[in-house]
Amino acid sequence: MTLRAGTLYGVGLGPGDPDLITRKAARLIEGAQVIAYPSLAGGDSFARAIAADLIAPGTQEIRMDLPMTTDRAPAQAAYDQGAAAIADHLKRGTDVVALCEGDPLFYGSFMYLHARLSAQYPVEVVPGVTSVTACAALAARPLVARNETITVLPGPLDDAALRDRMRAADTLVVMKVGRHLPRLRALLAAEGLLDRAIYVERASLPAQRVLPLADAPDAAPYFSMILVTRGADPWL
Amino acid sequence: MTLRAGTLYGVGLGPGDPDLITRKAARLIEGAQVIAYPSLAGGDSFARAIAADLIAPGTQEIRMDLPMTTDRAPAQAAYDQGAAAIADHLKRGTDVVALCEGDPLFYGSFMYLHARLSAQYPVEVVPGVTSVTACAALAARPLVARNETITVLPGPLDDAALRDRMRAADTLVVMKVGRHLPRLRALLAAEGLLDRAIYVERASLPAQRVLPLADAPDAAPYFSMILVTRGADPWL
Repeated sequence: MTLRAGTLYGVGLGPGDPDLITRKAARLIEGAQVIAYPSLAGGDSFARAIAADLIAPGTQEIRMDLPMTTDRAPAQAAYDQGAAAIADHLKRGTDVVALCEGDPLFYGSFMYLHARLSAQYPVEVVPGVTSVTACAALAARPLVARNETITVLPGPLDDAALRDRMRAADTLVVMKVGRHLPRLRALLAAEGLLDRAIYVERASLPAQRVLPLADAPDAAPYFSMILVTRGADPWL
Repeated sequence: MTLRAGTLYGVGLGPGDPDLITRKAARLIEGAQVIAYPSLAGGDSFARAIAADLIAPGTQEIRMDLPMTTDRAPAQAAYDQGAAAIADHLKRGTDVVALCEGDPLFYGSFMYLHARLSAQYPVEVVPGVTSVTACAALAARPLVARNETITVLPGPLDDAALRDRMRAADTLVVMKVGRHLPRLRALLAAEGLLDRAIYVERASLPAQRVLPLADAPDAAPYFSMILVTRGADPWL
């Protein structure tokens, strides 16, 4: 008799407000026997915190602790260990729910688990609300309409790459702002886009705030974003 | 005695599967005394269909019927009428929940209501799962990782605009494919991107399907999308 393998669910939790979790994600987490999630450098896990009210007592938890370094090898080792622990459950027929901030496939770490496990086990991805639309909602700005285009750029890109893409885009979203804020602000100002640039911090969380980019703090948190909309008549 | 005005909620419903509605959106719809939604040319409303199981008996419904034309004036008239009907409730202190496919501010029609009502009434936007991440989930492809960029393009753009942006993008998502499919496929082939291009139709709905773009039907439905990922090592 062969045992049917468990399914690995990659579940998007949205931008941080537990209320922005989808009904499907909530049901999967509530019913999970085993969950898995990343944490950073021995600290708390943001993903686990978002889902906390849905995790039943007695649920087994697999924690993947990622070191605070840009070197990829230690993180790869953490995902190797996590994937092995997850596989132990899947091979016995138990499903595992991997908790992912935002959407699992949009700048998410779930791809590292998918890469390690999808050849041997069934995997299902449950999409989530991204921080991009959460920021637009908080700023009350339409992101794109009709035939406009939108480009998402990570702040750590170099100046030349950022500048080229800033020029080509209609709506522009800069993620992973953090310590790059002063440089990003200078680049946008040089392109004549500072007037239209909005800074959004921790969208959907209690400490959320929105400011003109011109007034934003030089030291921005990692969960901050810049939004530049320039549709001809976005509100009409 | 002054009456407190009602709030207009613009509520994202996600890509089509009612299970991808967020907990916040579900609660607002279940508790709504008045809902509003667009429908197309006298036909059914896709937004209403997604939310159907949450709409309580007796809920008042404001339907904005949009004509099937690219001329903007008749649609503007439909939103004018809808906004006036919504305002009648808001001014009496009753909240109105506007149902929006996907996310209200991502190629959504909610901006037309926001433009007409946000100066006089409180408005809150509840972000939703977009079809972009739903398509990636179905195709099981990471959209973007690390410092990659992503650009979303509407298929109706002209060849030159599409070509420039196809060349500049890392990950590329083409929305509103419909009858433009053969032209989009030819453009992607000319750029050497056909091998990496995936066609996704009706993601999250029962009739969903994924195909290599090379095998996609020439006559695609409106709710179809092309996904091109070209990260150097997306799975590692």
